[in-house]
Amino acid sequence: MTRAAQRGTTRDRVPPHPDLRAVALQQVLEALVDPVRRHIVRELHAAGEDLACGVIELPVGKSTATHHFHVLREAGLIRQYYVGTSRLNALRREEFEDAFPGLLQAVVAAPEQR
Amino acid sequence: MTRAAQRGTTRDRVPPHPDLRAVALQQVLEALVDPVRRHIVRELHAAGEDLACGVIELPVGKSTATHHFHVLREAGLIRQYYVGTSRLNALRREEFEDAFPGLLQAVVAAPEQR
Repeated sequence: MTRAAQRGTTRDRVPPHPDLRAVALQQVLEALVDPVRRHIVRELHAAGEDLACGVIELPVGKSTATHHFHVLREAGLIRQYYVGTSRLNALRREEFEDAFPGLLQAVVAAPEQR
Repeated sequence: MTRAAQRGTTRDRVPPHPDLRAVALQQVLEALVDPVRRHIVRELHAAGEDLACGVIELPVGKSTATHHFHVLREAGLIRQYYVGTSRLNALRREEFEDAFPGLLQAVVAAPEQR
């Protein structure tokens, strides 16, 4: 089965994604103010490819991790989709850059620790 | 009395300011996640000059406003100083840009409402 066909069979499990033109700066900053969520964004940015949730090591339990991915998705920072039973996460780099120029780059470039 | 002399006489009232090299991204984002504090930053950025606290119209009471200025100062976003009895606020543009490249510009450039 092709990846596209797999996606087709799981379309009902693909969660909704906001149009970034409708996302407010407030929501984006509320997503990015959490260090665990910034870690997810940094990992996706550094990987340069889509990652399954389980691949990103987080200092929280599974349901809390799922919540953090949800918040990032609602803020338009990531896109989630299924391949078989794996939920994959893609950073919405270009769309986000169009909506909030320079913001993602500034956050991932900033040192977390001084 | 010159402005410099006035500052000298009120040096004990000038609050402490952090070295931006010691400010964490977490603290900066916690400061910027509040819409009232972003409004202050935007007003200072748009004015292009230092402003007294009372000049910036805010939808909060005076003690709450003072708190917001305090949080911005602690996060290294503004510098406060006295001229006579007026407390003036300066955006620490260049120092902040050195410490967090692109972040201030990205936040003030982003539309608050969609």
